[in-house]
Amino acid sequence: MRNIFVIGAGRSSGALIQYLLDHAEMLDAQVIVGDQSLALAEGKIGAHPRGKAIAFNIFDDTQRQEQIRKADIVLSLLPADMHFVAAKDCLTFGKNLVTASYVSKEMASLHEEVHQAGLLFLNEIGVDPGIDHMSAMEVIHRIQNGSGELTGFWSYCGGLIAPECNNLWGYKFTWAPRNVILAGQATAIFLEDDRIRYRNYMRLFSEITEIEVPGHGKFEAYANRDSIKYLPLYGLEGIKTLFRGTLRFPGYCRLWNAFLKLGLTDDSVKMQNSEGMTRNDFIFSFAPSSGGVNNRDTLAQFLGEPSTGEVMEKITQLDFFSDRKIMLQNATPAQVLQSILEEYWVLGEDDKDLLVMQHRFDFRQNGKSIRIISSMVDKGHDTTITAMARTVGLPMAIATKLILQGKITATGVVIPTLPQIYEPVLAELHELGIRFTEQQFEISESK
Amino acid sequence: MRNIFVIGAGRSSGALIQYLLDHAEMLDAQVIVGDQSLALAEGKIGAHPRGKAIAFNIFDDTQRQEQIRKADIVLSLLPADMHFVAAKDCLTFGKNLVTASYVSKEMASLHEEVHQAGLLFLNEIGVDPGIDHMSAMEVIHRIQNGSGELTGFWSYCGGLIAPECNNLWGYKFTWAPRNVILAGQATAIFLEDDRIRYRNYMRLFSEITEIEVPGHGKFEAYANRDSIKYLPLYGLEGIKTLFRGTLRFPGYCRLWNAFLKLGLTDDSVKMQNSEGMTRNDFIFSFAPSSGGVNNRDTLAQFLGEPSTGEVMEKITQLDFFSDRKIMLQNATPAQVLQSILEEYWVLGEDDKDLLVMQHRFDFRQNGKSIRIISSMVDKGHDTTITAMARTVGLPMAIATKLILQGKITATGVVIPTLPQIYEPVLAELHELGIRFTEQQFEISESK
Repeated sequence: MRNIFVIGAGRSSGALIQYLLDHAEMLDAQVIVGDQSLALAEGKIGAHPRGKAIAFNIFDDTQRQEQIRKADIVLSLLPADMHFVAAKDCLTFGKNLVTASYVSKEMASLHEEVHQAGLLFLNEIGVDPGIDHMSAMEVIHRIQNGSGELTGFWSYCGGLIAPECNNLWGYKFTWAPRNVILAGQATAIFLEDDRIRYRNYMRLFSEITEIEVPGHGKFEAYANRDSIKYLPLYGLEGIKTLFRGTLRFPGYCRLWNAFLKLGLTDDSVKMQNSEGMTRNDFIFSFAPSSGGVNNRDTLAQFLGEPSTGEVMEKITQLDFFSDRKIMLQNATPAQVLQSILEEYWVLGEDDKDLLVMQHRFDFRQNGKSIRIISSMVDKGHDTTITAMARTVGLPMAIATKLILQGKITATGVVIPTLPQIYEPVLAELHELGIRFTEQQFEISESK
Repeated sequence: MRNIFVIGAGRSSGALIQYLLDHAEMLDAQVIVGDQSLALAEGKIGAHPRGKAIAFNIFDDTQRQEQIRKADIVLSLLPADMHFVAAKDCLTFGKNLVTASYVSKEMASLHEEVHQAGLLFLNEIGVDPGIDHMSAMEVIHRIQNGSGELTGFWSYCGGLIAPECNNLWGYKFTWAPRNVILAGQATAIFLEDDRIRYRNYMRLFSEITEIEVPGHGKFEAYANRDSIKYLPLYGLEGIKTLFRGTLRFPGYCRLWNAFLKLGLTDDSVKMQNSEGMTRNDFIFSFAPSSGGVNNRDTLAQFLGEPSTGEVMEKITQLDFFSDRKIMLQNATPAQVLQSILEEYWVLGEDDKDLLVMQHRFDFRQNGKSIRIISSMVDKGHDTTITAMARTVGLPMAIATKLILQGKITATGVVIPTLPQIYEPVLAELHELGIRFTEQQFEISESK
C-alpha cells in the first residue's frame, strides 16, 4: 500500500485531505496527516479507514526523517520558509514533493540534483501561485500554437467573500490578516506599453484598475508585487504589457488608501502608551496639524473625502471615534489597525468565501487584434471547504494523484507551466467545479 | 607638554583643528591629527610647529591603543558607529573623549564605568546635536529659573547655502548626499497640543511649517525624526507641544514631494537595465498609467503641478527629459536621483554655506503668555572653514580646551545640557561670531 504524507492540517488543508481520502482506495494508498496539533490532524481525517493522524514536529529530525523515509510522496502545507528542511530529506530518501509555495532560492538550488535523481519537486501548484500559472499557460500556448503574437497580458486574483455574506467594508479575512494589513509595502513593478514601471506603496491603492467578471459585476485591482518575473516564466519576452493585480470589491482601495495616507498601516514605529489609548486617540495621532482643532471634519478634509461620505462612514463604523481602549502594548499602527479590523472583518459561521481570477490576453493573429478574457469564480461550501481551501488544495491533490499514477513524468524543481501538468489538472478541476469561462472578441487597434 | 589626539581630518575638521592649533601654545599642547589619508591630515596641520599629522587606521588595535595611551584627550570625528572602539580604549587608559555624535546605546552603557573612573565622555557637542542642545537649554533654564512654565518648544536647523550662492533648486549638498536623498524615510514623531503625533514619510514634505528668521527671510521646515526623546533630555515633561524640524529654502519641499510621490527616492528596488536608460526613460518609469500617453503634461497632472509651473521647470532643468544616459548599473531610483542631483547641487569653489538654527519657546509667566524666538545664522568663510565645519567643530574644540583647563568637571557619558558646559561654550562661540539673537513678545491666548 502506498503512503501519502501530508505535512500540515491547517486552514487550507480541508479540501486537499478530503480529495486524497476519497481517492485513497483507487490509489491503494494510506493518507498520513501530520500536524503539531494532533487534534487538528484527527479532525481532518475523521474516521476514514485509510486516514491516519499523527502529532508531527518538522524540527524533530528523527521523526521527520522516519516519516519521509516511509512515504511514497510528501505534500508540504508548511509556511514557505519551512519546506526546505523537508525537501532535503525527500532528496536523501528519493521521494517526490508537492507544495503550493513560490520556489525559493534554496529550493531552486536543488533542481539539478532532484533532476539527476529522477525525482519531481512540484511547487506553486495552489491557486496563486498555481491555478493562475496553469490557466494562463493553457491560453498562452493555444495562442502561440495558432501563430498568435501576444501584445499584452493582465492577470488578476483575489480571495474575497461571497457577495451575500459581504459587509460594509467589502472584505473579510480569508487569509492571514497581517499579510492583508501589510500588503503592497514593497514597490510594485510591471510592464506597460513597452516600459518597466515602478509604483511605490504610497501610490498603490490610488492608482487602480477596474475590471468586470461576467455574472459577478465589477472589481478593482491594485498592482501585485513584481510582474516582470513572469516574462521568462511564461515565455512572454517581447510582450508590451504584463500586469498582475490583486482584486477587491469596489470601494475597498479608496478606504485602504485613507488608512495608508494617515499612516495606520505603518509597521515601522511603536506607539507609546498604545495600551492606554482610546480608538479616538489612536486615529487622531495621525491627524494633520490644524491649529489645535481635530475632529472628523479636519480628518475628512485631510483625506480629501466628504465628511459624510462613504469612506468617513466606513471609518466611523469601525468605532474609530469611540472611547474604547486599544489594549495592545507597544503596538505599531499596523498592529492596532489589525486588532480593530479583526473585530469586524472575521468570517462568520455561515459565511462563504469567494475566489476570483481573471486573465486578459491581447494578441494579433491573421492581421486581427483579438482579446480573450478568461474568468473563474469559486465559492466556498462552508468554513472548512472554503474556496481558498479548494483552490489551494485541489490542484495539489490532483497533481499528487497524477504523479502516483505516473501520468506526470517531469523531473527536477518544477512549476506547473508544462502542458503535461496543467492539462490534466485543469481538466479535473473543471469536473470539480473550478471552471474558467472565456470571452473572445476582436478589438479595434486604438484600444 | 599635553597631547590632543584628533581622529579624522575630513570635511568638518577644518575649523576644529585650526582652533586647537591657535590655542596650542596657551594650552601647552601638541595637536596630533590622525587620518587614513596622511595627505588629508597634513593639509589640515600645514606647517604649524605644534601640529603633527599621522596616517592612522582605527581598526589597527596596536596603533590605536598606542596613540590613545599617549594622549591627554581624544576627539573622534569618525562616523558615529566607529566611536565605540576608541571609547573603550579611552576607558582602559583613563582618557577623556569628545564627539559630535548622538550617544549610541553602546556608548550610553559605559556611563557608570566612565563616571567611576572620574572621566568625561562628552558627546553631541557639534551643531545638531550640539549647539541646538546648548542654546535651547540656556533659554529653557532661564525661563524655568524665572518661574516660567513652558507650554511649547519648536526647534529648527538646516545646513544650507548662502543666498548669493544659491541655485534654482534652493539647495546644494553641504553634507553626505545620500543622507539628503534618503532623509525622512522613518516615521516622524512629535508632540502637538498634548498629543503624540505620527507623520509617515509620504506626508513629510507636504505638511510643512513656514518660519521667518529676522534678516534672513522665510524658510520651510519638515518634521525631523523623533522629537519625543527630547522631553526627558531637556526636562520638558508636561509641555504641550514639542517639535523639531529640518529647514530648507522655500520651494524645496514642494519639489522634493514631487520626487517622493513619483518614487524617485525609493531605495528598496533595483532598476533593471538602469545603465542603459536615458534620464527620460528613468522619469517615465514612474509615470502613471495614462492610456499610452506619457509626456510632461501627464506627469505634471499626476503631480498636481501646472505644466509650466515652478516644479516642472525645476525638474526640466535637471535634464530629466533628455536622452542622456544614466550610466549606473542595477541602481535604485534613489541612487539614480542622487547621481543626477550631484551634477547640479555641488558646492562651487567660491560657494559659501549657511547654517540656520531657530528655537521658539512659548511659556506662561506672571499670568502672561510670552514667546521667545532665538535665531542663529552662520555663513561659511570658504570651502574649508564652512559654516558646517565651524558649527560642528568649534563647540568640540572649545569644550576640549575647557576640559584641559579643568573648567568642565562633569564625569560620565554626558551631553551638553549642563550649565557648566553650555555657558562657557556659548560665550566663546559668541566671540567667534556664532551668535543667537532673541526676540521676546507677549502673545494673545488664542495664538
